[in-house]
Amino acid sequence: MNILVTGANGYIGRELVARLCTLSALPGYPDIQRITLSDLAFSQVPDDPRLHCIPGNFSEPATLAAITDPAPDLVFHLAAVASGQAELDFPLGLQINLEGALRLLERLREQGNNPTLVYTSSIAVYGAPLPPMVDDTTPLSPALSYGAHKQLVEILLADYTRRNFVQGRAIRLPGIVVRPPAPNGAWSIFSSTLIRSLAAGQPCTLPVNAQATLWLMSLHCCIDNILHAATLPAAKVSGGNAWTLPALRVSVGDIVGAFDARSAGAASPLVHYAPDPAIQAQFGNLPPLNSAAANAAGFRHDGDLNTLLDRAVLACATHSPTIAS
Amino acid sequence: MNILVTGANGYIGRELVARLCTLSALPGYPDIQRITLSDLAFSQVPDDPRLHCIPGNFSEPATLAAITDPAPDLVFHLAAVASGQAELDFPLGLQINLEGALRLLERLREQGNNPTLVYTSSIAVYGAPLPPMVDDTTPLSPALSYGAHKQLVEILLADYTRRNFVQGRAIRLPGIVVRPPAPNGAWSIFSSTLIRSLAAGQPCTLPVNAQATLWLMSLHCCIDNILHAATLPAAKVSGGNAWTLPALRVSVGDIVGAFDARSAGAASPLVHYAPDPAIQAQFGNLPPLNSAAANAAGFRHDGDLNTLLDRAVLACATHSPTIAS
Repeated sequence: MNILVTGANGYIGRELVARLCTLSALPGYPDIQRITLSDLAFSQVPDDPRLHCIPGNFSEPATLAAITDPAPDLVFHLAAVASGQAELDFPLGLQINLEGALRLLERLREQGNNPTLVYTSSIAVYGAPLPPMVDDTTPLSPALSYGAHKQLVEILLADYTRRNFVQGRAIRLPGIVVRPPAPNGAWSIFSSTLIRSLAAGQPCTLPVNAQATLWLMSLHCCIDNILHAATLPAAKVSGGNAWTLPALRVSVGDIVGAFDARSAGAASPLVHYAPDPAIQAQFGNLPPLNSAAANAAGFRHDGDLNTLLDRAVLACATHSPTIAS
Repeated sequence: MNILVTGANGYIGRELVARLCTLSALPGYPDIQRITLSDLAFSQVPDDPRLHCIPGNFSEPATLAAITDPAPDLVFHLAAVASGQAELDFPLGLQINLEGALRLLERLREQGNNPTLVYTSSIAVYGAPLPPMVDDTTPLSPALSYGAHKQLVEILLADYTRRNFVQGRAIRLPGIVVRPPAPNGAWSIFSSTLIRSLAAGQPCTLPVNAQATLWLMSLHCCIDNILHAATLPAAKVSGGNAWTLPALRVSVGDIVGAFDARSAGAASPLVHYAPDPAIQAQFGNLPPLNSAAANAAGFRHDGDLNTLLDRAVLACATHSPTIAS
């Protein structure tokens, strides 16, 4: 089988590719023969003869044709302009996050191969302020163009799936920790900055206060869920194709407390709070989350904060500076 | 002020243009100086020096540039490929109903004039089957590409409005009666066929049974609501920009009964029922509708079935064959 990964040099893409390289097949699919990686540029590509890196903007025709030759059987569509950057540069966000996704869907439709397509949507589809509890009936009301475009692609994916052009599965990611230290334009990056700083015993300044609540998932757990989306039997995805993933809901104070417990109280003095009301409202006020549909479909969060932090701290150690994707 | 009407040669567009020609200004706007009409071709254009017809496909760059020169202050975006045609010809529906709308929004954003834009969405955004009651909290779950694309444009319009690129107002139209006799690819056309046939004393065959329930609005009332959307004070549209219009909920039997009352029972024998389960499920099973938000914003339905039928029968008399738009 042929796999295509867009955004393959992003922090999620690289981890997904590394995991795929450890596998000879995915449940329910034939052997992995080829993994095509699409991104603007590449770094840290594993040594695996099945990998084919194609640099370029996937939303442009020549690159799109190249990354879909041969026609993929499974697509992980991760490529995106992050929240803050998409808000500041509207045309770029539109081009990549909506029009690029549409061009990719159209290309896959025209190829007629009906591939499985896993799309990393975002909790940004809910917007802000959120109701006192979020569940599978909560209306979507994106407050940023990034979230609006994520919702648009979910709807396109549902329609393309209904028409058997692709077999789409959208998963709405919570905050994934830790991101690499290089800023990528995501306004939610402070949760990664906090964990990275405390893991290294370094001071940090946060744009939210200690009471800020977050929905978090480790990068390791995120990859588990992305692969689970790809390997769900088709029968299980009928009637719905967008899941809000389960996430651990923790406060900034919970995280600092967990690091204090690991360091005899050395963490608290390292954290300086300088709340930005807009960031706090949009990214630091997450209510309880009931992700019943995703739980029933077999998606999982990290289980508990210490497991999440163990995984996140481990990931910090493996990062090195990379080309922003 | 300059007004742009897309789909100006459609059955709603022609009626809107005729009404605009009777007006020197709209409440809250300066005098109407120019009305640009966009459609593939034109027929029955009123004699008014303010009208400028620009034939062509608005989704193509040259035509789009022409119809937005000079930059409009108010846009009525009616152009669409109808439900059945968009389902049968996916690329055409995508091009006109989604990509065309996006190109228009992008053009208006780039012009920087922040025009008011009234978009005729559809109750097709709800999909089928519907819950036992539809209100402003009913989730959208389009069952056809036509409805999916309408929902997508609503979301785009909300984002463009939030960012002050346009002042968008989307109104979800119910079944509008009567449409012209020429088929335009709308699978809901049978309600117009029924009324037109009984008004003329002609037999007809329906793809639904007598118990089928419909949400209807006369074309006259539809134009009232389109103009109301354009003239709502901006303060009233904050917090929401898509309204499900109020509609009369009637059964096919109600309509036949009303014509029987007007014709000493001559209507019933004219109607033959040959239900198509798919059409009945999608277009003939409309539950009670509570359009509270639209009512509060001043949108109105026809009031009662006899008023609706009076208006619809009057409209039948004014139709003549036209070029399909």
